[in-house]
Amino acid sequence: MINCLLASTSTLYGGQYLDYLFDALKDLYQNTNEVLFIPYARPSGISHKSYTDIAAKAFNQIGKKIVGVHTFENPIAALEKTQGIFTGGGNSYVLVDNLYRFGLMDKLREVIITGTPYLGTSAGSNIAGPSIRTTNDMPIVYPPSFDTLGIVPFSINPHYLDPDPASKHKGETRETRIKEFHAFNTTPVIGLREGSWIRVQKNETTLLGGGLSAWIFEKDRDPYELPVGSSLGFLK
Amino acid sequence: MINCLLASTSTLYGGQYLDYLFDALKDLYQNTNEVLFIPYARPSGISHKSYTDIAAKAFNQIGKKIVGVHTFENPIAALEKTQGIFTGGGNSYVLVDNLYRFGLMDKLREVIITGTPYLGTSAGSNIAGPSIRTTNDMPIVYPPSFDTLGIVPFSINPHYLDPDPASKHKGETRETRIKEFHAFNTTPVIGLREGSWIRVQKNETTLLGGGLSAWIFEKDRDPYELPVGSSLGFLK
Repeated sequence: MINCLLASTSTLYGGQYLDYLFDALKDLYQNTNEVLFIPYARPSGISHKSYTDIAAKAFNQIGKKIVGVHTFENPIAALEKTQGIFTGGGNSYVLVDNLYRFGLMDKLREVIITGTPYLGTSAGSNIAGPSIRTTNDMPIVYPPSFDTLGIVPFSINPHYLDPDPASKHKGETRETRIKEFHAFNTTPVIGLREGSWIRVQKNETTLLGGGLSAWIFEKDRDPYELPVGSSLGFLK
Repeated sequence: MINCLLASTSTLYGGQYLDYLFDALKDLYQNTNEVLFIPYARPSGISHKSYTDIAAKAFNQIGKKIVGVHTFENPIAALEKTQGIFTGGGNSYVLVDNLYRFGLMDKLREVIITGTPYLGTSAGSNIAGPSIRTTNDMPIVYPPSFDTLGIVPFSINPHYLDPDPASKHKGETRETRIKEFHAFNTTPVIGLREGSWIRVQKNETTLLGGGLSAWIFEKDRDPYELPVGSSLGFLK
């Protein structure tokens, strides 16, 4: 059974990396002391090692050890063996490109579906849906596909921002971009505000965290808000 | 010789579609009364016809007729024959996917290089560079390539926004995203504010318009601003 936590962001304004999630992570990783980190998204282009060091420092505070998947000669075997996985945020295209390049996409899906606890933040949450077609990132590399894990039947838009009614900017709002997505796709989209996360556990999918509510976008329907605590199991 | 105008946006806050560009467009299209419109980017998912109607209404105010490329049985022949082209904004992925699907990318490059006047706004400007890797859009469809016209040697980031120092949002700023681009690419990037455009004419490339300045991002160099009126011919 899938056991995962999909967060909009790793870090809240004024907070430290992952600190607002520490209690939830103790629960998610209760049966393991070591978590395999997937650093491929490389925020700001930092190295795999630097990124893994950041994750390790945070996990150290909840008594867990982090090991970077890039340190293994056989990363597929590392995924099969680990009792916990964390994919950090950064650039979704680079992340997906690397997962395909190292042949890890199918194996990652398989171990999550069979119960390995999984944490995603930002780009790491985006890949839990069927594709990265609702990412906010720049397409700085061309991956072999936009298709991703599909362990949840909806697509997450991380770092969701409500339109600013005072803005004089004419670039598309997030809402307009998701409307364009639904001109070509039928997958429901969750506009997940910073501070919120989605917990999949024991066949239940629930909106949690401090983001108060999330926006739900379905094709041919006006978008609507759901409060924290809502079940998302009805979305297909 | 290339004769083109690449604008950050079609519309300014409080203005009407293209109206701030009317004088510049009279100059660009001085030798033709009819302009071929490429509506493929479909902003908000509107139809090719609706989008062409919007462009036609604006061009009517400067005494020019608009015809949509989608109305031709042979769009390649239409590109060869026309004396003026305009590619509107919307979704860059959908635009590029359609240009490849209809076999128009190479022909569009060819006619622009041989002198057909070209106007791009937003996504239509983005494709003038070597790729759409600095677009802000969502990847709502998977195009066969991110490579585009390459009629200018830099990549435009349209609707450029300076980082907001008061923001509590933790999503990447535009500047951070472009920094990530340069972790994987060497092409210079121009952060083009709304109101600004780039004019290529008589082998000169010049920053113009009301956006006051543009940000220039080069790999392994701190970003810097150039004022309107600057030559951009040094960027390679």
